[in-house]
Amino acid sequence: MTRRYTIGVDFGTLSGRAVVVAVDDGAELGSAVHAYRHGVLTDRLPGGVPLPPDWALQDPADHLDVLRVAVPAALADAGVDPRDVIGIGVDATSCTVLPTRADGTPLCALPGLRDRPHAWPKLWKHHAAQRQADRINTVARERGEPWLARYGGRVSAEWQLAKALELLQADPEVFHAADCWIETADWLVWRLCGRRTRNVSAAGFKGLVQDGRHPSADFLAAVHPDLPGLLPKVDGPLAPAGARAGTLTAEAAGWTGLPEGTPVAVGAIDAHVTAAAARSVAPGRMLAVLGTSTCLIMNADSCHEVPGLCGVVDGGVTAGRWGYEAGQSGVGDIFAWYVDRALPAGYASLAADRGVSVYELLDSLAADQPVGGHGLLALDWHSGNRSVLMDHELSGVLVGLTLATRPEEIWRALLEATAFGARTVVEAFTAAGVAVDELTAAGGLTANRLLLRVYADVLRRPLHVLDAAHPAALGAAIHAATAAGAYPDVEAASAAMGAPHRQIYHPDPARAAAYDDLYAEYRALHDHFGRGGTEVLHRLRALRHRALR
Amino acid sequence: MTRRYTIGVDFGTLSGRAVVVAVDDGAELGSAVHAYRHGVLTDRLPGGVPLPPDWALQDPADHLDVLRVAVPAALADAGVDPRDVIGIGVDATSCTVLPTRADGTPLCALPGLRDRPHAWPKLWKHHAAQRQADRINTVARERGEPWLARYGGRVSAEWQLAKALELLQADPEVFHAADCWIETADWLVWRLCGRRTRNVSAAGFKGLVQDGRHPSADFLAAVHPDLPGLLPKVDGPLAPAGARAGTLTAEAAGWTGLPEGTPVAVGAIDAHVTAAAARSVAPGRMLAVLGTSTCLIMNADSCHEVPGLCGVVDGGVTAGRWGYEAGQSGVGDIFAWYVDRALPAGYASLAADRGVSVYELLDSLAADQPVGGHGLLALDWHSGNRSVLMDHELSGVLVGLTLATRPEEIWRALLEATAFGARTVVEAFTAAGVAVDELTAAGGLTANRLLLRVYADVLRRPLHVLDAAHPAALGAAIHAATAAGAYPDVEAASAAMGAPHRQIYHPDPARAAAYDDLYAEYRALHDHFGRGGTEVLHRLRALRHRALR
Repeated sequence: MTRRYTIGVDFGTLSGRAVVVAVDDGAELGSAVHAYRHGVLTDRLPGGVPLPPDWALQDPADHLDVLRVAVPAALADAGVDPRDVIGIGVDATSCTVLPTRADGTPLCALPGLRDRPHAWPKLWKHHAAQRQADRINTVARERGEPWLARYGGRVSAEWQLAKALELLQADPEVFHAADCWIETADWLVWRLCGRRTRNVSAAGFKGLVQDGRHPSADFLAAVHPDLPGLLPKVDGPLAPAGARAGTLTAEAAGWTGLPEGTPVAVGAIDAHVTAAAARSVAPGRMLAVLGTSTCLIMNADSCHEVPGLCGVVDGGVTAGRWGYEAGQSGVGDIFAWYVDRALPAGYASLAADRGVSVYELLDSLAADQPVGGHGLLALDWHSGNRSVLMDHELSGVLVGLTLATRPEEIWRALLEATAFGARTVVEAFTAAGVAVDELTAAGGLTANRLLLRVYADVLRRPLHVLDAAHPAALGAAIHAATAAGAYPDVEAASAAMGAPHRQIYHPDPARAAAYDDLYAEYRALHDHFGRGGTEVLHRLRALRHRALR
Repeated sequence: MTRRYTIGVDFGTLSGRAVVVAVDDGAELGSAVHAYRHGVLTDRLPGGVPLPPDWALQDPADHLDVLRVAVPAALADAGVDPRDVIGIGVDATSCTVLPTRADGTPLCALPGLRDRPHAWPKLWKHHAAQRQADRINTVARERGEPWLARYGGRVSAEWQLAKALELLQADPEVFHAADCWIETADWLVWRLCGRRTRNVSAAGFKGLVQDGRHPSADFLAAVHPDLPGLLPKVDGPLAPAGARAGTLTAEAAGWTGLPEGTPVAVGAIDAHVTAAAARSVAPGRMLAVLGTSTCLIMNADSCHEVPGLCGVVDGGVTAGRWGYEAGQSGVGDIFAWYVDRALPAGYASLAADRGVSVYELLDSLAADQPVGGHGLLALDWHSGNRSVLMDHELSGVLVGLTLATRPEEIWRALLEATAFGARTVVEAFTAAGVAVDELTAAGGLTANRLLLRVYADVLRRPLHVLDAAHPAALGAAIHAATAAGAYPDVEAASAAMGAPHRQIYHPDPARAAAYDDLYAEYRALHDHFGRGGTEVLHRLRALRHRALR
């Protein structure tokens, strides 16, 4: 019998990757990665227009290049006959959202709007809309909007509505020129199959759609008189995870090398499809996707309103369950910042001498430190805080520096800070009555053994580690298999095609006990700087805005 | 008429330097620097015995080498006939204190004690005696010791008594083996002239001698039953600044190349003699010696008890006035830490490409930032706090980090933090009724123009800059001229021989106003972390001690 395959394409922050996966057991037969030509636009547009601080844009043309380059390359790598591919699925970072014309043309592709920053897709980590999020939260609280509690009591500056309000206030002409305000994953599915859909997951977690309804026009008008004009732009058929959005157009078939008519799955959020890849879709199984940022994803059979989490959405991860998402907005990004901006020259050359990466060098130097031996404590807010404070104008803090402090000690304090942040989120879940029975880690940072050990110790629970080279892309391929009808639902497809767990890290009792002390200090600093003990971080941010104006 | 000369020898943290100076106008005719062979011992003794964290020792043999090497070299450099040298003076860091036998032999030079860390001279920045200082402060407060207010209400872990108590508790055998517990400057003068003296300045500022009396035996016994045994060890004739301690012995004449019988001035503290070099000995003229650490020195005609300053001593700077000292325990040390431990490789190579030092590179990159544009704030406590908190178990704090934070922004935040620290001290003086009329900067860091500009802006007052290559050594030479009888007192010698001011930095009103906002944030963080708002820094230090035990 001929083996059948699906393709999953994962659009990350800096690159896209495609995998070719066997439908029967999820085995990966081939893959290809394509880096975005423009990476993340933070300083200026490709045409030279400078961008303010906290901005992060992408170029949609870079995304289409992934379909043109990585998909055919993955097929070639797999040596698979395209006619044996029964479906394709797409996931992307979220909320990464762009304004388009009614035919799907991105506004930034129009010659007249190319130099308008607000015409470009705003990447998830575009953090310039905090004041807009504050306004939305204030009005929602004042009006007692029923959906607010589903988002832990605060919506994020990263999401569709805050970014839309920023667009409306800062460049109303572009706002009004947009027919659609759409997630990148949904836009890509539209490009593939010619049909516009809105995936329930992004609509719910990032678009504030609850129980099938957007926030009301009355509410939007109370935020800004022209904001109700957003509603037609975010309209479109809501489609559940793993459903079929349509089939490949001739044009998209030409890009990808797949036959026209191949089923295309509904778009999805990267971390959410990873839950399928990790077999973490059963209730009580939490998935932590440790990457640039961290997403924490979990299904449960009931709806609990957890203070400070990102959201709870009916069918938000898989159809028929309540999906929960929480997250940490800076994790791998903070580590990369450290290595790029604060690692002394001697360490780079020592790593080169030893033939290891600087990450491996730092881990090896930090691994044997006794817990607390560095005397340091950090708050992991270099990219703001997504849970449980939901405030992107917070910033990183490092305390306990002495003249004896070594780089590997700061490194370890940063690793630990992100583990403390994860524990803060897990405790918020359990405190709200959502049991976390099993914890699985996925994502690029699972290559870091020290990090995994620290997480197991800090979280005081066994940490399963997913064994998949491209977990999000595998998840997208699982969604594609469901959309193609090979399985009745994502949960069944996940059970058959999900990747095994490579390893389990068990907490060490002595280290875990020592971390309890440090974690108590973390929580105290966390609340002091993040919950109004001092407003210094907000005031520094305001001074910075004023100085750079 | 034959021109006459004096020699000043300055014993710093890492090296000693000698200058040959004309007695009539203070012109420097020659100089030489000799780096200590063992530098600062922080990790282990020369014999390999490891040292705990926060330790800092010196080798007295290194100090004698300076007399043997740098003095003859300076004479040669000056081309001066040694017979025209009418005196020699010595200053050293303080409190740098060592245990010796009755004949002056350092205990660490005895074969049986060479591997005993407590037998070695403890450098000023040896910071392992904070718990001892806490004990001394508690008992002094409980007993209402009258001298405590002269030290701002808290004595320092850097000083003679805390270090002596540490010695007594940790190695009583060495404590009891010591006949003398003596400042390095006084020990060196003893080596030069064969007569033991105790300079009023170190005895007052570091030895708690007030109104001619040491703390009472009753008080010492209340601290520790054996501590009254310290009193005979710190005894010796008190001698005022600029007095003659004796004349060169034949042995010391052999070391230095000077004639036997040359007058030797009483020992002095480096920052204090610098006041003479800077013509800053008149009342109301404050001298800031900006180096590894910062000393702030001032004379006044009356005694005010300033909360949190290091001390006020009758004749402590020059005879006949009340001398004030305050200080910041980490300044240049913090900058060096940053460059050594946190400056990325790219910056080192960029500096090399441009043919500048990394310090100059960072300054040039940071110079044009608008005030507050980096969004950062630091507490300059990497080496503890000497004023106004007097607590060496505090540690550095850095807040406001984002993924966009660049190295030159952290650099500038560190420069600014030390300026805020200086303003905190100056405000403590003025709040206590001690007027600061003029501010002069000296020390190695005056090579940094950005730093001087930031200080002028933050302090909101003109900053004079001393123009002397070796200001402390010049000050020691001025003391030597007084000891030799060339001038009636140090003030007269300072007026004749002191160095000119190179430049005056005037504050920029707009920058100064912007710094007022940042300074308000600094003071709030300062009080929160340093005055009991949180004890996190102490708890982190305790965790570190426990982990490394």
